[in-house]
Amino acid sequence: MDFDTIAAISTPSGEGAIAIVRLSGDAAIEIADKVFRAPGNKILSTVPTHTIHYGHLIDPSTGHNAEEVMVSIMKGPKTFTREDVVEINCHGGMTAVNRVLQIVLNEGARLAEPGEFTKRAFLNGRIDLSQAEAVMDLIRAKTDKAMNVALNQVEGRLSKLIQTLRQEILETLAHVEVNIDYPEYDDVEEMAHDVLLEKSRFVQIEIEKLLKTAEQGKVLREGLSTVIIGRPNVGKSSLLNALVQENKAIVTDIPGTTRDIIEEYVNVRGVPLKLVDTAGIRETEDIVEQIGVERSRQVLAKADLILFMLNYSDELTAEDEALFEVINTMNAIVIVNKTDLPPKLNMNRVKELAEHKKILTTSLLAEQGIDALEEAIAALFFSGTVGAQDMTYVSNSRHIALLKQAHSSITDAINGAESDVPIDIIQIDLTRTWELLGEIIGESVQDGLINQLFSQFCLGK
Amino acid sequence: MDFDTIAAISTPSGEGAIAIVRLSGDAAIEIADKVFRAPGNKILSTVPTHTIHYGHLIDPSTGHNAEEVMVSIMKGPKTFTREDVVEINCHGGMTAVNRVLQIVLNEGARLAEPGEFTKRAFLNGRIDLSQAEAVMDLIRAKTDKAMNVALNQVEGRLSKLIQTLRQEILETLAHVEVNIDYPEYDDVEEMAHDVLLEKSRFVQIEIEKLLKTAEQGKVLREGLSTVIIGRPNVGKSSLLNALVQENKAIVTDIPGTTRDIIEEYVNVRGVPLKLVDTAGIRETEDIVEQIGVERSRQVLAKADLILFMLNYSDELTAEDEALFEVINTMNAIVIVNKTDLPPKLNMNRVKELAEHKKILTTSLLAEQGIDALEEAIAALFFSGTVGAQDMTYVSNSRHIALLKQAHSSITDAINGAESDVPIDIIQIDLTRTWELLGEIIGESVQDGLINQLFSQFCLGK
Repeated sequence: MDFDTIAAISTPSGEGAIAIVRLSGDAAIEIADKVFRAPGNKILSTVPTHTIHYGHLIDPSTGHNAEEVMVSIMKGPKTFTREDVVEINCHGGMTAVNRVLQIVLNEGARLAEPGEFTKRAFLNGRIDLSQAEAVMDLIRAKTDKAMNVALNQVEGRLSKLIQTLRQEILETLAHVEVNIDYPEYDDVEEMAHDVLLEKSRFVQIEIEKLLKTAEQGKVLREGLSTVIIGRPNVGKSSLLNALVQENKAIVTDIPGTTRDIIEEYVNVRGVPLKLVDTAGIRETEDIVEQIGVERSRQVLAKADLILFMLNYSDELTAEDEALFEVINTMNAIVIVNKTDLPPKLNMNRVKELAEHKKILTTSLLAEQGIDALEEAIAALFFSGTVGAQDMTYVSNSRHIALLKQAHSSITDAINGAESDVPIDIIQIDLTRTWELLGEIIGESVQDGLINQLFSQFCLGK
Repeated sequence: MDFDTIAAISTPSGEGAIAIVRLSGDAAIEIADKVFRAPGNKILSTVPTHTIHYGHLIDPSTGHNAEEVMVSIMKGPKTFTREDVVEINCHGGMTAVNRVLQIVLNEGARLAEPGEFTKRAFLNGRIDLSQAEAVMDLIRAKTDKAMNVALNQVEGRLSKLIQTLRQEILETLAHVEVNIDYPEYDDVEEMAHDVLLEKSRFVQIEIEKLLKTAEQGKVLREGLSTVIIGRPNVGKSSLLNALVQENKAIVTDIPGTTRDIIEEYVNVRGVPLKLVDTAGIRETEDIVEQIGVERSRQVLAKADLILFMLNYSDELTAEDEALFEVINTMNAIVIVNKTDLPPKLNMNRVKELAEHKKILTTSLLAEQGIDALEEAIAALFFSGTVGAQDMTYVSNSRHIALLKQAHSSITDAINGAESDVPIDIIQIDLTRTWELLGEIIGESVQDGLINQLFSQFCLGK
């Protein structure tokens, strides 16, 4: 396809040693040549592809040196976008990189929209939609495991699986077609029916397998929103500190503007825990008292994980019992803290109230029990199989929704085949499944969706 | 010189499309080869210099793909450090870039100290100390003019000037030496004396010229710390907003950690104004009342510029008069606001109190007078000659201090020569001047200072 030439800052904003302004498009090298001066009057359009050139960027309006740069020339189609790509490495300050961007924009490049480089990689056929989406996941990955999931997807593992399933469906449809075209051959009909059931069941099972990875995939991708609750002085802040100290805090989620709220993550055995800020914790101290059981249930329901703390050296209070009621249906771990003090807590009653929830004892003061807690958190979401490197996870909500729909329509096809529904009805279900799976990798997808998807990218990608 | 191989993240921290891990040293390419896999088993140590290679980084501990990368190979001496340099461009997320860094560290690279790449460029003789210092100024430049100053310095303009002056002194010392060695030739002595005075005066004048640029240079480099004062309701917030709205706010100064305080700058005709935050402004509202005249004078004395606002539609109060007293000896502009309302202010009295300070009238409500204010601010610091592109500014406190000392010792030499002090005493002053100028460009500088200077750099530079 033929697009105009775009440019954007491709490194994070802030101060660093190096920043990159990237250009992509037919005129990328020509634009760079207009403003680049190197010893020996080197002309960039004549240099070999994938080479690096030292020189200065000139501000054409003054004729003066505007910045000292290294320019990388990469000619399509062996580039990220499959177009000609120029990367201008300059000094990593805001003034420097903005100046370089401004100069190339003045010479005819257009400021890229968020995600537009990756969108071109997709539109030019280098990657499919699920791969493009994984590029952003890769950048936003909070933990190593999340990054592996994204990397596998960027490399096309999910795509290949989806393509295999679509191929199976296509072959099944071909059999069905034969059956419709030559209804006089009885044995063809029978064979088609068998093949249809067999292939459809295969597709159904594979989709189910993928959907089973979805919960873990989403946790890896987005992190577990975690709230610590309990009565005042039970040790909530100590627990927060222990989790943050024992595990490297994954700060950032660096913001378009530098003013946004910063989310704090800790990496607990590969599971990214998004801890509510201390302000949030203070608020929940008297959450039941303040807003009542029903309302606090709603507030806490937004969390993926509740860490509910009890005091081993104190009797169970009405508030504790109320909190048990609130977290009744939630993912929660009960933590009995202060085991270094004399016991007063009725543990039998606690076990009764906790029902099948995991109960752990800790003494945060004596630094005991944190390891077991971390294991419990990991086990709650990754029973046994945590993130084998080569596993294909589905982690993207859009993909999960499409897989669920595809599962429902392949199930319709199977049920139809089993109850002798006319073959042309089954054909419709199969075609629908094929289309839904196609949407995951960006085939049969409308422009509107594409634009919306890429607009969630960061600038310069 | 021979150093070990260092590595660091060279792009700002945060999320972006691309991040760079840079390696420098003899083993840089070898280390990259250990962990790089590309189609066709490309070996990086065999590729031509200044070329770019697509592939994957392997985690040797698992054998799996760890990241998709573009690797740039630049062989010394034509590199930033004059050593072999490898730049690994990876996805611009914290997990991705940290993983890449970890892999090269595991393979034998050492984590670079802040500024260590630039330090090597200096130690390996590619740039001198004043150029190295300007690299950091370039990155931190708040405005275009500040960047031009830094860029000129990176390109060695200040260095060349300093070298010329040192050469003049060296020639003078040679003449003096002849005079000491052959005292029997009277005409040699006379000539030496004349040459000495002439050359020393030339050096003195050039140092004076440089020092004259220092105030402007410092303002361009560090920004003007500006405080707006005045009674409540006189329009301080409106003025702040007007300055921020009319001029693109230069936010950032992005911090090592994302938690640091963010300074806000506005670019007023090329002058970076560092505005105290609104909290600060609120505090100064009743500054005199709260803390007394003497104490507020001390507080405000830290500012480079005071914008003192009066109310045109109100009579002068005792508080106004007290503020006039406080700002008496400071760089201040008096702004009479609310000229859209009926006049009540005794302007003659204002002129009397303002003495030789600039007085401007504004109506922020009617958006009048901002232009004149901006001109006045620029004029206060750049009378006429604001930042000619090719001017050499001194902006670094260390350079200014050394120039002042050099000026003092060259003046001693001149005074000595004029009052027939023995030539070997003058020789000492000249040698001292030569050494002091040498320190600016990093000759005759002790290791301790070098280490301290580079430790102020950002990581990866």
